[in-house]
Amino acid sequence: MPDLPPPIPFRFESATPLRWVDVDSEGVVNNAVYLSLFEQARYEYFARLAALRAGNIAFVLAEAKTTFCRPGRLGMAVVTRARVRRLGRSSLEMDFESVGDGEILVRGSAILVWVDQDLRPMPIDATARRRIAAFEGIPEGSSE
Amino acid sequence: MPDLPPPIPFRFESATPLRWVDVDSEGVVNNAVYLSLFEQARYEYFARLAALRAGNIAFVLAEAKTTFCRPGRLGMAVVTRARVRRLGRSSLEMDFESVGDGEILVRGSAILVWVDQDLRPMPIDATARRRIAAFEGIPEGSSE
Amino acid sequence: MPDLPPPIPFRFESATPLRWVDVDSEGVVNNAVYLSLFEQARYEYFARLAALRAGNIAFVLAEAKTTFCRPGRLGMAVVTRARVRRLGRSSLEMDFESVGDGEILVRGSAILVWVDQDLRPMPIDATARRRIAAFEGIPEGSSE
Amino acid sequence: MPDLPPPIPFRFESATPLRWVDVDSEGVVNNAVYLSLFEQARYEYFARLAALRAGNIAFVLAEAKTTFCRPGRLGMAVVTRARVRRLGRSSLEMDFESVGDGEILVRGSAILVWVDQDLRPMPIDATARRRIAAFEGIPEGSSE
Repeated sequence: MPDLPPPIPFRFESATPLRWVDVDSEGVVNNAVYLSLFEQARYEYFARLAALRAGNIAFVLAEAKTTFCRPGRLGMAVVTRARVRRLGRSSLEMDFESVGDGEILVRGSAILVWVDQDLRPMPIDATARRRIAAFEGIPEGSSE
Repeated sequence: MPDLPPPIPFRFESATPLRWVDVDSEGVVNNAVYLSLFEQARYEYFARLAALRAGNIAFVLAEAKTTFCRPGRLGMAVVTRARVRRLGRSSLEMDFESVGDGEILVRGSAILVWVDQDLRPMPIDATARRRIAAFEGIPEGSSE
Repeated sequence: MPDLPPPIPFRFESATPLRWVDVDSEGVVNNAVYLSLFEQARYEYFARLAALRAGNIAFVLAEAKTTFCRPGRLGMAVVTRARVRRLGRSSLEMDFESVGDGEILVRGSAILVWVDQDLRPMPIDATARRRIAAFEGIPEGSSE
Repeated sequence: MPDLPPPIPFRFESATPLRWVDVDSEGVVNNAVYLSLFEQARYEYFARLAALRAGNIAFVLAEAKTTFCRPGRLGMAVVTRARVRRLGRSSLEMDFESVGDGEILVRGSAILVWVDQDLRPMPIDATARRRIAAFEGIPEGSSE
């Protein structure tokens, strides 16, 4: 049986503590909360790489997928990992993981599009692209 | 070129009005809000079919996919459509659409698992299954 | 014993339906949700009176008080009433009530300050002031 | 002019970091978020004092007041302070402060009522009462 390639490691992790209000009437962290944790990790990721524009995220979300692995519970210490897996011309793909007390609660992925102030797609800023590629060790991709 | 089959229509629609707070610092409805609109439509769907358990949803979310088509804006009249596309033994698949002022803002799908009080998967309740199948005009699927 | 003056009636009411996610792990509508319902009613109030600025609320919240009268429950039809009780030079006072199935769930009041784009207090816009006073039947107050 | 008594210090502080989604379309932390930060600090306060019941807060909110001092901004390190100021028979009064980068953003107070599983008021649990009084250095108040 052939060996599986090792999973791509996450190089970025952000503390994303839960709030009491995150737990819904089923007694578990509500599903929509995780999109906000991913978003928070995303913001901190681009802030860390100095890839924000005017202090905010210059991307909009085109697609998001989330797989719920285990119920999140109040009191868990939760961190969220983020990485850029692929850089395109005006879009990129990210992966996310929220981990509670050392176990994966939720996995996610997203396609993000770099937009101008009017939310129209435009090529990813060259400096942002270079910094992301260098941080992740992935190709810079097309920027023409 | 062969004709595409007609898309499966949604037989259920719920008014899911926006709130001022749903709009984030990018000036559009925040992505996580849509998961809450889908959830609200899901709750009303199962309530309509008398397929709740003790007044609440007996399903947990296993997977969710969302495609963001257009930015949602304050002042839009938003409705969310829901349907069950496939019934399995202990899980089912649903589709969602949130529509603002007549245009699709977001499409989504989800896999939901019927669980007991301790969140362990169990076969979908037979009555709920029968009602869902009848409402959607789909096979009841396996219930053994 | 002297008669109490009749309570000032609300002249504005907005449908503010609940969402499934509003119910927290105690099984009741979470307290913070009501501030968002008040905010929603406030937005619609100023929209109705054509007293928005560039499509948004030109006020910031200085103070908010909330009295929780009854637990809000999923399935209740909830409306929120709003009125301006007093117009000042750059601030005004509002009252709110969220009502579920005909019973008051929460009462609130707020002090709001009209601000410029940098969030600095400035006199309430004269047209907005006039419209509010006319709608509520209260004095226009000082505008110098 | 007589000296004012020194303000009562807070003996409890909890990190309550912001999320990107907390910032609303006015570019500041939305008012309702602070009620959730207070709630989170309250939960951690009672957890620290081992004064939860079955792992959750045994109090419901009867009243809340909030004064907004400065706009909260993304990137601020926010902590929330909590204290019990007065212990009554079945209710208590708390104060809160959310502080961002060392400056007070919001002050709040709340009246909380100890309730049974059906949300009916009952005397505060004797052990919880004793622990709170000891922690705050305040009278235990009436428990008959």
